[in-house]
Parts: sequence; C-alpha cells; structure tokens
Amino acid sequence: MIAEIISVGTEIILGSTLNTNAHYITKKLSYMGIDVYFHTTVIDDPKLLEDAINIGMKRSDLLIFTGGLGPTYDDMTKEVVAKTLGIKLILNNSIEENIKKYFEKTNRPMTSNNIKQAYMPEGSIILKNEIGTAPGIYIEYNSKIFILLPGPPKEMELMLNKYALPLIKQDNIIKVKTINTIGIGESALEDMLKDLIGNTQNPSIATYAKDGRVDIKIIVKGTNEEKANKLLENTIEKIDSKISKYIYSYEDESIEQTLYKKLLDKNMTIAFCESCTGGLIVSRFTRIPGVSQVLDRGIVTYSNKAKIEELGVKKETLNKYGAVSEQVAIEMAMGLLNKTEVDIALSTTGIAGPSGGNEKKPVGLVYIGIATDNNAYAIKSIFNGDRTTIQNRTTMKAFDELRKII
Amino acid sequence: MIAEIISVGTEIILGSTLNTNAHYITKKLSYMGIDVYFHTTVIDDPKLLEDAINIGMKRSDLLIFTGGLGPTYDDMTKEVVAKTLGIKLILNNSIEENIKKYFEKTNRPMTSNNIKQAYMPEGSIILKNEIGTAPGIYIEYNSKIFILLPGPPKEMELMLNKYALPLIKQDNIIKVKTINTIGIGESALEDMLKDLIGNTQNPSIATYAKDGRVDIKIIVKGTNEEKANKLLENTIEKIDSKISKYIYSYEDESIEQTLYKKLLDKNMTIAFCESCTGGLIVSRFTRIPGVSQVLDRGIVTYSNKAKIEELGVKKETLNKYGAVSEQVAIEMAMGLLNKTEVDIALSTTGIAGPSGGNEKKPVGLVYIGIATDNNAYAIKSIFNGDRTTIQNRTTMKAFDELRKII
Repeated sequence: MIAEIISVGTEIILGSTLNTNAHYITKKLSYMGIDVYFHTTVIDDPKLLEDAINIGMKRSDLLIFTGGLGPTYDDMTKEVVAKTLGIKLILNNSIEENIKKYFEKTNRPMTSNNIKQAYMPEGSIILKNEIGTAPGIYIEYNSKIFILLPGPPKEMELMLNKYALPLIKQDNIIKVKTINTIGIGESALEDMLKDLIGNTQNPSIATYAKDGRVDIKIIVKGTNEEKANKLLENTIEKIDSKISKYIYSYEDESIEQTLYKKLLDKNMTIAFCESCTGGLIVSRFTRIPGVSQVLDRGIVTYSNKAKIEELGVKKETLNKYGAVSEQVAIEMAMGLLNKTEVDIALSTTGIAGPSGGNEKKPVGLVYIGIATDNNAYAIKSIFNGDRTTIQNRTTMKAFDELRKII
Repeated sequence: MIAEIISVGTEIILGSTLNTNAHYITKKLSYMGIDVYFHTTVIDDPKLLEDAINIGMKRSDLLIFTGGLGPTYDDMTKEVVAKTLGIKLILNNSIEENIKKYFEKTNRPMTSNNIKQAYMPEGSIILKNEIGTAPGIYIEYNSKIFILLPGPPKEMELMLNKYALPLIKQDNIIKVKTINTIGIGESALEDMLKDLIGNTQNPSIATYAKDGRVDIKIIVKGTNEEKANKLLENTIEKIDSKISKYIYSYEDESIEQTLYKKLLDKNMTIAFCESCTGGLIVSRFTRIPGVSQVLDRGIVTYSNKAKIEELGVKKETLNKYGAVSEQVAIEMAMGLLNKTEVDIALSTTGIAGPSGGNEKKPVGLVYIGIATDNNAYAIKSIFNGDRTTIQNRTTMKAFDELRKII
C-alpha cells in the first residue's frame, strides 16, 4: 500500500508553521509497514487542491489529508474532497449538537460558520475529535482510502492513533517498542548499536533524539502474534546487553513520568527550588496528572533576595561564592528540605545566558543541588547551547539524577 | 509567477529530518512577491521524481529543487531533471578542479563518484557552493525556471540568497507584517475581519492560530517602496479599527515578551504563585533573557499545605470555599504581594484535570488572582481541552490580563 500525505493550508506553505504533521503521520504509517512515497502541500485554493487530489489518486492508495477542516472561510478540504469524489455533504445532527455544546461549555458565542463543520460526506465514517470542534473523516472510494484529519497537531495525533489508523487493515502483525535513554548522544548511541541497526529490515531499529533524550524505536513484523513478540523480546535483550545503563524506561515515557512513578511507588514526596531553570522543572513535572500525590511545592527563587527569604540561603555564602556555586546549590536544597516535610529537595542555580557569563563562570555552568534527610550534595555541569537549550538540559539532568537515586 | 518547491530525499519523508528547506525558501520567495502554491516531497526514485517534475512543470513557473545533488548513488536530482527536460550533461572542468581542490584542502581522499558532481546540464548557469562540493544549477527551459539546490540547509541557504535569488527577476516590492492578538478565537477573529480577508489578493490577510494566540499576517505588494508602505499602513489601520482590543503587539512577539517590555518600561516588578499551572507561567516568563530585572520569584503551591505556609492562605478559606475558588485565588495573590515587595502578584488555582472535576467545579475551571497595592480580584474562566491545553490557556489568559492592566 502506497500512501501520500496531503497537507492543506496556506499557512504551512507561507506561514511560520513547520509541517510536522506529515512527518508524524509518516512515522506512524511506517510502523504499520505502509510506505509513504509523497508529501504534498497545497495552499487553500479549491482548484489547486482538487488537482492535487486527482494526482494523489493516480499514484497512491491511501491519501491522508491534514488541515482545512475548521469553520473558517479558507477551510475547504472536506468540501473539495467530496466534490472531487462526487460525494454529497449531509448535515449530521449529532455533530451539530456537539459543536453547540462545545461553545456553551466555553461560554463563547457560536458563529454561524461553525455549523459548516457538521456537514459530512455521505457514507463516510466520522472520526471523533475529543479536543476540538472539527471531526475527522474516513472515506473508502474506488478501493482507495481517504482520511481527513484536522490541522492542529494535538487534535490530529489523538484522532489518527485512536480512530483513523485502526480502520486501516494490515496483513502483517506489527509490534512497535520504544526504549527511552538519557545521558548519551544519538550518534554515540547509534555507534554502540551499529551491528544491530541497519543490517536488517526486520527488526528495524532506529534512534530518535527528542527533548534531551534519545529514543530507540524497534519495529518488528511477524506472520503471527507469537512470532512478532518473540522477535521483539530478542531484540530488546540484545539492545539491553549493550546500553542498559542509559535506559530509563521501556514504556515510551518522559523521564519525569519515570521519576513520578518511582516516587509514587516508594511513597516519597519531593519539592523543587529553581533559579536558572526558572520553573521549567516543576512545570514539566506538573504536566503529569496526579502529580500532587508526590509534589509538595516548587519555588522559583530568581533573585538573591528570594533565595534568602524563601530558602534561608546565607548572605555570606552568596557574597563569598556567588549565587552560581556548589555551596549555594546545597544551601538552597537544604533550605527547602528544612522548610518542607519532603523526602527529597532539588535545587538549580546556573548561568542560562545569553549574558552573565565570565572566564571563571561561563554561560552554561549549572549546579544541581540535592538534599535528603541523610545527604546533601551538588552536581556541576557545563551545558552548551542557547538559553532555552541550557534550561532544558539542566531540567533533563535534574530528572535523571533524581530517578537514579530513588 | 507561481513557484513550487520539490524536496528530494527518502530521509525527508521517512527520516527524522523535518523539511525546513521548503519552508525557508518559501519565506524568501514570498518576500519577493513570488507565490508558492505547492510543496512536493518525493523519495529517491527516478521514476517518481520524473513524474513529480512533469506535474510541477504543468502547474508552476518556477521549480526549486533541494537535495539529491551529492556524489552518492541515490543523488539523482540533476540527472533526472536533465533527462526529463532532454538536456545533455557535460563535464565542467573548472568544477572538477574545485572538487579536487576541496578534497586536497580537507586532506580527504576523493572517491571517483565525486566527479559525478562536475557534470552540468548544457546551457545551465552554475551556482557556486562555497561551503560544500555540490554546485547548484539554474536552468531556463520553455520559459520555466528550474533551480537545483543542495540539501544541507547551510549550503542551500547561502547559495539561494547569494546566487539563485538574484537571477530571478521581480516586478514588485513586498512588505510583510504580523499582528499578534489574544483573547479571541480564530474563527471569531476572521468573522470580524471577513470584509478585509479573502476579497483581495493584495493586501493578502490571513489568520494563524499559534500557542493560544492568533496572529494576523499581512502581505502587501507595491510597484515601489512608498506604495507598498502606504498600502500596509492602510491595512493595519483598517484591522486596528475593527479588533484593536484584541491586539497585544505589532512586533510579532509572544505575549510574555510584551508583558516583560511593559513591566520594564514602567519599572515594575512581579511575582507569580501557581497551583493548576504548576510553574508554567513563571517558566514561560523566564525564557526571556534579562527577565530578572522584573521578576522577583515564583512559587508553585501545589498542596494546600504549601498554600498556607508559603502564602498565608487561611485554613478556613480552604475548608469553606475549597482550593479552587475566587477567595483562595485572591488570598494567594495577596499573600504573595505581602511577603514580597513586588508591584503585582498573580495567582492561579484551578482544575487542570483529567480527574478532580465535579458538577459544581468542572475540569477546566480556573481562577486567576491579581493583587496590587490598591486592588485585589480574581477572574473566573472555564477552559476546554486536556490537562496541558488547560494549563496553556490559563497561562495565556494570565499574561493577557496582566498586560491589560500595566
């Protein structure tokens, strides 16, 4: 089965939006053993879109569209696909209801153009949009499959995985496993795995660098469940034997999720005080539902005044060693541990830049302090990159150090 | 002139490489008044590429190719373009020399396949590659323009700007302006602007929803600088007259940047205490370099205990009204204002979900508290979406409320 991704939207061509959707969908399809040969992006123009659809129908079996399902004037994907295939659009009352409810709930007036989203191609399967107003659409026509998805990545991804992909029949059993690693670069990791990677199509093993970690994606195909599982287990064992120390999860989860589970498991609580990361650690951590069971509080002590008032850091220590120092990192963590009843307190202090660095303390210098009832220490790192990168790397390092000691 | 970007390479479709080239080239062309209607990406397959070229020639006047100019076997763009146009490839001695020199300079042995890069389509203009081995190519054929650029972004960008674009004659001056709005949905905004949008190609006005805000992008064309500027000013005035209350910046910047500038300008300081946003507000704010001049601290009081200890929220208030209430939001903000010396303190308390909601207090219910020396109040909102979306929307709303009162 040959697939083509057709992205619709002037903003993808002209605008500031990178086309991450085509990329994401292609990856998902490849895990199912479906070959994507073409990405097409076309502006919001009915005639040009119609041409693109006709071209796609000639060369591909599966056409996945993203974008242009919304209520606005230039959202036209559904209309043009229906017209090109000669299928009528019919008002779907339950969708109409949902849209009305959505606006009631958010206390916003529903403009008339929103009703447009309730018209569906005759005989199509409707793909539920759980976090937006525009539903997706699945159409089979002349033994070709057309899948229309909304443009916003969150809506598109949820709909694709939960509702669209399950509708596509596949002949092989495919198993996908993602192993999460941290503390090693992608090329170094690839090098350690080189005799596993690339020399075979099944299993296919690939590495993906992603927000400061590197994921190893394993895709195996098998004629039946058992064979696929066996091959997958073997592959995981081989990988394990080579790089186990860098693996923090086999669950395809973020490092903070791993940390959260460990804390919950050990019934421990934690608190953070941050200077250079400015709340990135605690905000990343609080993305996890239910985190309140293990998180007591976070304090962003950006000013020295705040470090003294909130954490009891000594003026002398600040004057003698400077805010960015091992001593201050430790005093911050201990101060937080003492004022709370948590089991672990973590602190960060560093120079995120772009300015503020010097010979002795360069931009990228970061101390991470960790305090528990029977121990307090700081870890020194020097990170490369711009302000955001340094803040992100510090955050990853902090979570990594924590999950190691819990 | 209608342009199409054709990206060649299996790695762009399958790999982890995002297609940033097409994006970059499009932006450059749009500023020259050249309309890009299509992005096509095709894997390294001569037949499929040839088809893509024929399709491109039918619908576009300018075809810009990236990738597939290198020495390896699957680099085939130049060969396939030449074949499709029926143009001979001829060895170019000076290029052959340059390639040899390049390898001498880098002390690497030159493999024979590198000579492949010295063959050029007859009658084409060669585009110098100052930082790589593969030169670019400019061909005019049947009053269509073909430009072949290398895949590596650094090489491509330098060649495009320095050698390729100057060869394209342009008849218009182009001005681009982005206006940032917040507090209104994209469809509602478009509705308010509908008699400006779409009924004309020049100016072209489009809206783009982006991280909880909506940007309005204006592109005007003029036969000279003055005319273009005049049209741009007129367009901005018209937009202003309709939706000024939603506009927070004309500088194409984030809402937190606007807030930061206003605080700096008024020489004011701020502090945040967050419950449901879990530090997202302060971490977003501290992404801005130099923010320490206006930010005193941030406190993430996730537990009630922390709300009481850090902010002096009264037990009775928590018991009587619950943590998610107008009263607690106000006590949080006032508590923070009193313990610091800031001019403004902002608090958030809400139910980010997925669990924890009920009839009276549904998931998405959020109170934002604001306290200054002479005022303290809370704003109630009910946001839709998943946990992250609710946290993001609360954060945007918080920044929006602040920039309004400063």
